[in-house]
Amino acid sequence: MMARLHAIALLLLWSLVGSWISPVYAGVDREKLLAEPGIYGTFAAFALDEDWGRLEPSTRIARLAALKGVVEQHREHVAIDLYLLRGLSDQADLLFRIHAVELRDTQEFLLDLRSSQFGKHLKAAGVMHGLSKKPNYAPGFPEQMKADLKTVSEPGEKPYAIVIPIRKSAEWWGLGQEKQAAMMQEHTEATLPYLKTVKRKLYHSSGLDDLDFITYFETSSPEDFHNLVLSLEKVKEFQYTRQFGNPTLLGTVQSLDEMIEILAQ
Amino acid sequence: MMARLHAIALLLLWSLVGSWISPVYAGVDREKLLAEPGIYGTFAAFALDEDWGRLEPSTRIARLAALKGVVEQHREHVAIDLYLLRGLSDQADLLFRIHAVELRDTQEFLLDLRSSQFGKHLKAAGVMHGLSKKPNYAPGFPEQMKADLKTVSEPGEKPYAIVIPIRKSAEWWGLGQEKQAAMMQEHTEATLPYLKTVKRKLYHSSGLDDLDFITYFETSSPEDFHNLVLSLEKVKEFQYTRQFGNPTLLGTVQSLDEMIEILAQ
Amino acid sequence: MMARLHAIALLLLWSLVGSWISPVYAGVDREKLLAEPGIYGTFAAFALDEDWGRLEPSTRIARLAALKGVVEQHREHVAIDLYLLRGLSDQADLLFRIHAVELRDTQEFLLDLRSSQFGKHLKAAGVMHGLSKKPNYAPGFPEQMKADLKTVSEPGEKPYAIVIPIRKSAEWWGLGQEKQAAMMQEHTEATLPYLKTVKRKLYHSSGLDDLDFITYFETSSPEDFHNLVLSLEKVKEFQYTRQFGNPTLLGTVQSLDEMIEILAQ
Amino acid sequence: MMARLHAIALLLLWSLVGSWISPVYAGVDREKLLAEPGIYGTFAAFALDEDWGRLEPSTRIARLAALKGVVEQHREHVAIDLYLLRGLSDQADLLFRIHAVELRDTQEFLLDLRSSQFGKHLKAAGVMHGLSKKPNYAPGFPEQMKADLKTVSEPGEKPYAIVIPIRKSAEWWGLGQEKQAAMMQEHTEATLPYLKTVKRKLYHSSGLDDLDFITYFETSSPEDFHNLVLSLEKVKEFQYTRQFGNPTLLGTVQSLDEMIEILAQ
Amino acid sequence: MMARLHAIALLLLWSLVGSWISPVYAGVDREKLLAEPGIYGTFAAFALDEDWGRLEPSTRIARLAALKGVVEQHREHVAIDLYLLRGLSDQADLLFRIHAVELRDTQEFLLDLRSSQFGKHLKAAGVMHGLSKKPNYAPGFPEQMKADLKTVSEPGEKPYAIVIPIRKSAEWWGLGQEKQAAMMQEHTEATLPYLKTVKRKLYHSSGLDDLDFITYFETSSPEDFHNLVLSLEKVKEFQYTRQFGNPTLLGTVQSLDEMIEILAQ
Repeated sequence: MMARLHAIALLLLWSLVGSWISPVYAGVDREKLLAEPGIYGTFAAFALDEDWGRLEPSTRIARLAALKGVVEQHREHVAIDLYLLRGLSDQADLLFRIHAVELRDTQEFLLDLRSSQFGKHLKAAGVMHGLSKKPNYAPGFPEQMKADLKTVSEPGEKPYAIVIPIRKSAEWWGLGQEKQAAMMQEHTEATLPYLKTVKRKLYHSSGLDDLDFITYFETSSPEDFHNLVLSLEKVKEFQYTRQFGNPTLLGTVQSLDEMIEILAQ
Repeated sequence: MMARLHAIALLLLWSLVGSWISPVYAGVDREKLLAEPGIYGTFAAFALDEDWGRLEPSTRIARLAALKGVVEQHREHVAIDLYLLRGLSDQADLLFRIHAVELRDTQEFLLDLRSSQFGKHLKAAGVMHGLSKKPNYAPGFPEQMKADLKTVSEPGEKPYAIVIPIRKSAEWWGLGQEKQAAMMQEHTEATLPYLKTVKRKLYHSSGLDDLDFITYFETSSPEDFHNLVLSLEKVKEFQYTRQFGNPTLLGTVQSLDEMIEILAQ
Repeated sequence: MMARLHAIALLLLWSLVGSWISPVYAGVDREKLLAEPGIYGTFAAFALDEDWGRLEPSTRIARLAALKGVVEQHREHVAIDLYLLRGLSDQADLLFRIHAVELRDTQEFLLDLRSSQFGKHLKAAGVMHGLSKKPNYAPGFPEQMKADLKTVSEPGEKPYAIVIPIRKSAEWWGLGQEKQAAMMQEHTEATLPYLKTVKRKLYHSSGLDDLDFITYFETSSPEDFHNLVLSLEKVKEFQYTRQFGNPTLLGTVQSLDEMIEILAQ
Repeated sequence: MMARLHAIALLLLWSLVGSWISPVYAGVDREKLLAEPGIYGTFAAFALDEDWGRLEPSTRIARLAALKGVVEQHREHVAIDLYLLRGLSDQADLLFRIHAVELRDTQEFLLDLRSSQFGKHLKAAGVMHGLSKKPNYAPGFPEQMKADLKTVSEPGEKPYAIVIPIRKSAEWWGLGQEKQAAMMQEHTEATLPYLKTVKRKLYHSSGLDDLDFITYFETSSPEDFHNLVLSLEKVKEFQYTRQFGNPTLLGTVQSLDEMIEILAQ
Repeated sequence: MMARLHAIALLLLWSLVGSWISPVYAGVDREKLLAEPGIYGTFAAFALDEDWGRLEPSTRIARLAALKGVVEQHREHVAIDLYLLRGLSDQADLLFRIHAVELRDTQEFLLDLRSSQFGKHLKAAGVMHGLSKKPNYAPGFPEQMKADLKTVSEPGEKPYAIVIPIRKSAEWWGLGQEKQAAMMQEHTEATLPYLKTVKRKLYHSSGLDDLDFITYFETSSPEDFHNLVLSLEKVKEFQYTRQFGNPTLLGTVQSLDEMIEILAQ
């Protein structure tokens, strides 16, 4: 649907970038950062400013080279994922998900991004931080449920990503571990039918921003995801939720190169 | 009331557009997209920027040619309806309703729209997504009500469209199917007198944005619509609604050509 | 207090306008539109942009001629009242009240206003729609109260206008007609002492925007109006109000020519 | 701490102003306006625009001459107090408190202020209106409390001013005069220890804006004021308050000449 | 990660600054201001405007010299700490924490900052004021807890700072000292495990802004801080909190020179 960047422009882009990042690039252990507890996950959303759409194509390509450069350079320290929100979410156009061992490394990436030639066109539209942790309630679940939870999501492209920030009520926190665990078991049961088609990741936020949790999803079927949320609204634990979404961020997963191609237009 | 575009300018517009979209244009099966379950409906509202009103008429016409081009081109994949909100709703000037089998197709249309010469004058003012589904409660309704619900809305122009986003309370979701069905029967009963003059379509949203439902209406009588809403406020189910409107979008239905004619001024 | 427009500039203004509106001007039946049920009332508030204050006086006068032209032209179809909010209300500077048989006529006026040379300096700050209806509860009131309600407000200038949007709670709508009528009788009793000095008009909004009612007042004594509101806060029906004001619009009634004279400075 | 305006610039300023306001200036009876019931008090807050800081010093001085001119001119009809909010409150930089017999006089001052050369740099950040009234509950208080309330605040500079808007709950208004009076006596008792160091003035707002009261304070000790508010939070009447502050405006009292000197930098 | 300022530019910066602040600089007793009761603490957050990123490096360095000058000059009267929020918090980029004996001194610093060449690029993003006080409940705690509370936080860098504004419910203020003390003891117990790794400071705000408390934290481990907040959410006193964060400000502690180096890029 979208006009393709001419090969010549892309070549120019790669050569511009190539000249200031080292050709041999080791990088952080992305898989480990996404799998382990104790890792900080940051979701930073940005809107493109009004000037962006008015830039000459050649200027735009030069600026995107700066984006590529900053992302590649910091991928040595932090894991960076990109999402295109424009068209599917309000106000924000781009979302970066950054996993890091230290929040300072995340801040350094975002500072460099903002002060880059590309970053001058970004307007901050929201940032959320969470922490990956070992499962809280799962150890007490019935054996069958524990086995079910090991279901691996189906292979294949999951082009849609959804981020839903969550804040629990003060009443929830006062319930005590036992009552919470019983409700979380009911909650978890409701998610089982969707384990194959909806991938989930949970971040704990209390104190790091104005949330308690950030829930992250990837799916090839927004309809399945909608049905999952409907199921979760019906369990008792949902009564103790005082913020669910607001904003809900819905976008598409993009590689850095795909994102650059889209933004180049 | 509004000055008419000179025939010459319109001719110029058609010729500009004609040169870059194919004359033979098949298009998506619009009727099917609007009637079937499992289709995504997106409502994207935009405000025109301050520069728009200051453009030279000839520039404005060229930009509107870009709008026409993008809409025609994407109508091969998605169904697109246009509404004029300016004057009747806060902040937003235009509303696009897009029906698609895949949300990615909707995103592609909106990306192309935004990056077109016309789109540079649009400021995103809100986007909502929903899904068409088979009726949830209707199968259990009394036979007479089922028959009544088959009432077809009167033919003829329905120039006004109203979009009301809805969010139910956590309590509603915890009620269970039976209690919900009883209340929805009372709710539906209240709508019967308006089936002829107010056309409705329901979208399910949970998880796709910060809503549970998007309700869409077309009518030739805003007064009838007002009386319908008054009736719905009086049934028990309304007590379980925590968002109704906010925003309520009220506008007029416009064909692409009518919209272009209005914006050309 | 304000510097007066030089006679020469005003003459210029009248001559500019005179040249493009017909000298014989019939117009809509304003009195009828303001008195009858089934008429749409729209309140459209605007802020002047920052450029307005920086215009050359002669440019400003030319733009005000455009305002005069648009208002005069549409007065053939809709009734238009003007209010100056600047200095008395937040953010919005001007308020238009438009009465029309069809909301489309209101939209056409506001479209023409926005696309006029004057309208390019307006930023939409809010629009509300309501419908005039026959009294709902009055037919059941005691005869004495019905007689009292016929009190005509004192003649003479009522320079202040106040618009208060109202939204009732879901609980109110569920009360049923009888309980509502009893409370509305108490409410109405509280208003009797102010019938002479505060003129009122009620608009029904449910479904047309995010309100249930728009209440409009004119008075020569804001103190009397304040005491009226205090009385209304004390009756039982007020407990069922979940939005009262927010915003409250307070301004002064201005004729088109007075408004132009003020804006010309 | 702040660089002083050179004597030459100030001389220039006085001479500019001197030439267009009459040297003999009678003025409104300020003391009477601040002491009597039935007087309207308006609080109008403004932010300086971004251009202000970039003006040439000589231009800035000329614009401040316009401020001085407008204030002096209107002081014949209304009492005007100035406060510097910048640095101590969010968003707003300046606050005007205007007392007038007629709200129209206040509007005329604010219109002239806004259309002056200085006013073009002001962005409206909020306006609130209230009315001075005779004490509501005091007549029923015990004699000792009435005597205590006659305590005059200590002479001497009270450089800090705080404005706290208040809205009571619907429940409060439904309590009835007797219960309210008992609670207001407890409330008043809590204020007695602070009568010497915190000066207070109360404005009644219902219907004139979205508040019920505006409370105004002057003090030389923000710590004393803080302790006063803490005491008031502990009495029963505070449970019936649904808005207290939001915004709280904290600033310093400035004469017109002091304000001009500060803004000249 | 960030490019270093060339030695030459820094030399230029020091020499620019050196010429207008006195070389011998006594300064306020910072330690005393941070330790004693009765001291005002102000948190002022700012966003950098869009022009900042577009300045020539040499201009930027000159402007940062102005920042350095203003801070050094006012450090004679107030204690000033700097924090970098960009990348970790929404909207605001910089945070100043100012301790002063008199709020006027804080206002003077912020006025001079805003009117400096650097300050012209700052947009106010929020200001909060509080007062240090002697511990309220601690004198009644058990001896062991009092001893535990003397735990000194571990030496070493604590690069992260978090500011959480707090507002208690009206119900809390009505509980009375005894019930509050019992709950605050439970609250304090929950904090003991984190005394070593999370440094805290409490400010009392009621009446000075729209908060009751400002809580300030420094830590080397955001994870520890997260666990501390989780513990505090579980105690009974948390049920009486109606605002916790909103906004939560998370940033990194920076010396003036480090901040200048970062902003110079």
